[in-house]
Amino acid sequence: MSEKHTPVGSLGEFGLIDHLTKNFKLKQASSIKGVGDDAAVIEHTDACTVLSTDLLIEGVHFDLSFMPLKHLGYKAVVVNLSDIYAMNAEPTQITVSLAISNRFSVEALDELYAGIHHACDMYGVDLVGGDTTSSVQGLNISITAVGRAKKDDLVYRDGAKEGDFVCVSGDLGSAYMGLQILNREKHVYLENPDMQPQLDNHQYLVGRQLKPEARKDIIAYLKEFNIKPTAMIDVSDGLSSELMHICTQSKVGCHIYEANVPVNNDTYNQALEFNMDPITTALSGGEDYELLFTVSPADESKINTDDIDISVIGKIVNKDKGLTLQTRANHLHKLIAQGWNAFKN
Amino acid sequence: MSEKHTPVGSLGEFGLIDHLTKNFKLKQASSIKGVGDDAAVIEHTDACTVLSTDLLIEGVHFDLSFMPLKHLGYKAVVVNLSDIYAMNAEPTQITVSLAISNRFSVEALDELYAGIHHACDMYGVDLVGGDTTSSVQGLNISITAVGRAKKDDLVYRDGAKEGDFVCVSGDLGSAYMGLQILNREKHVYLENPDMQPQLDNHQYLVGRQLKPEARKDIIAYLKEFNIKPTAMIDVSDGLSSELMHICTQSKVGCHIYEANVPVNNDTYNQALEFNMDPITTALSGGEDYELLFTVSPADESKINTDDIDISVIGKIVNKDKGLTLQTRANHLHKLIAQGWNAFKN
Repeated sequence: MSEKHTPVGSLGEFGLIDHLTKNFKLKQASSIKGVGDDAAVIEHTDACTVLSTDLLIEGVHFDLSFMPLKHLGYKAVVVNLSDIYAMNAEPTQITVSLAISNRFSVEALDELYAGIHHACDMYGVDLVGGDTTSSVQGLNISITAVGRAKKDDLVYRDGAKEGDFVCVSGDLGSAYMGLQILNREKHVYLENPDMQPQLDNHQYLVGRQLKPEARKDIIAYLKEFNIKPTAMIDVSDGLSSELMHICTQSKVGCHIYEANVPVNNDTYNQALEFNMDPITTALSGGEDYELLFTVSPADESKINTDDIDISVIGKIVNKDKGLTLQTRANHLHKLIAQGWNAFKN
Repeated sequence: MSEKHTPVGSLGEFGLIDHLTKNFKLKQASSIKGVGDDAAVIEHTDACTVLSTDLLIEGVHFDLSFMPLKHLGYKAVVVNLSDIYAMNAEPTQITVSLAISNRFSVEALDELYAGIHHACDMYGVDLVGGDTTSSVQGLNISITAVGRAKKDDLVYRDGAKEGDFVCVSGDLGSAYMGLQILNREKHVYLENPDMQPQLDNHQYLVGRQLKPEARKDIIAYLKEFNIKPTAMIDVSDGLSSELMHICTQSKVGCHIYEANVPVNNDTYNQALEFNMDPITTALSGGEDYELLFTVSPADESKINTDDIDISVIGKIVNKDKGLTLQTRANHLHKLIAQGWNAFKN
């Protein structure tokens, strides 16, 4: 980050918006009007608009003592795009609104927007609007993502059927373990500022926390092989919680095999070091932004798990059977959805 | 408000969203999927999607010591719909995201949502999504409004032409005077809690501040008489600031007649009581949510100011002439855009 520290107030609200957004070029043909009017305009022909929104609060969703602003900007965009992909839709535009306290300089916001810009480039989406205002305390980021899909291609949470296979992309629990490591190093540092953070051995886990990706590639793979999931959701709150959403809305149960749940070796070893059961990090740790979906048996046979990092972790069963985890030792446990509760944690 | 005070954490995040949104029925045919999936889905045929977003922060944009939560919910929706109307579009859906500190109870949020619900009913828009999370301090509300319009009907800020007439709906400065009164009574109360607020004589001004309306009726009138403005914006930051936006983006100047700027009698008298020049409240006071627009001479002749509260306040002139106010005493003043700067005020 630059050494300069230009007060945000020196640019004025409109000057600040211009300054932050002037390098964002519109790339989507559907973006008719971007930043700079009362509203953005998006043109459509025969497709549906898909809309998702998130509000991220400093001290609740992110900790700037270990989250660089550039990464934060990137992640804030990615978590919204992940919701659009989870509809089997293509993200096309975003709006970004910020509330910032006076401790933030223009240079700090430039870093944040550099991350937002990078995410827009990586995923081919346009920044088309937003709002910038002051906050009483801390940084708040509100992002709305817009996507499009043909009506028939959309995948909701409520379409899982008995006999369907339960699939998940990537691995689970790593972002949560990354957060535990960052928190540990932060506390070590607070107690002894001369200690340097020990992060070199944890690049994968820390990276999963600080710079997650949305699984655009999985959506492309499903399309390529003509696989339409019956239900889909992104894993933001932990596997248990997302399974509960799908099962509740689809009025079904599920049977999950612990042995099939993808847990990275680093996550596994780090969990043991923290005296945690590794499967718990997958079930209850959040922020993986992997895709959890169900497919019919016919579609399941099209998935080549050698080609793409999709794991088949269980099956959809009758509602009366509930949500069950079969452990490696063949014990059966009821799955309890303890999604991240922002009002209790 | 009810006497009950149910902690928000007792419902959990998903329980809270269900609780707050269960009475919102989808009314728009285009709302295919509302709250409850990764994203909302909006269907389109030949129209454009129009998208606007706002972030409202307690202590910056509103003061709960005199703003009832129900009014706040109503106003938060209305200010976003106003942006959609200012595109000459019809608002159809909104998303609402909240960040709330633990001092808010479920009953308090019910009040807020009662206001949101009332606004949705009044303007015929659907609540289709959002996010609910905790804040470190205070209440933050992020609203995104979606609207639609045929591409040819859209009105931007950049279409004003030399010779066009400058028009504004309703009256200006009243919301600002209402805020001054509320602030005065708050300070009287803080100094002497036994004093009751003196608001009875100020219903119009206080009402303009606490419960503004978006000018749906003006858009309907323009449509009925086949008038398409050349440029349009809603008055959220004050007339000067909005004129500057239109003139800058349209690359024109304007000549405004003070005598034609609509200032309500209550606003006029109250300004004098506060030792302010009444025209200043119109030029620099914000939150009126009236529509400021320019029309061609042919369209201007179709506006019957006996039928609808539209005032013709000036003309668009060549860019070189700048932005000028001609006072009642026929003095000429340069208009200075001192829109509300959230980072300095």
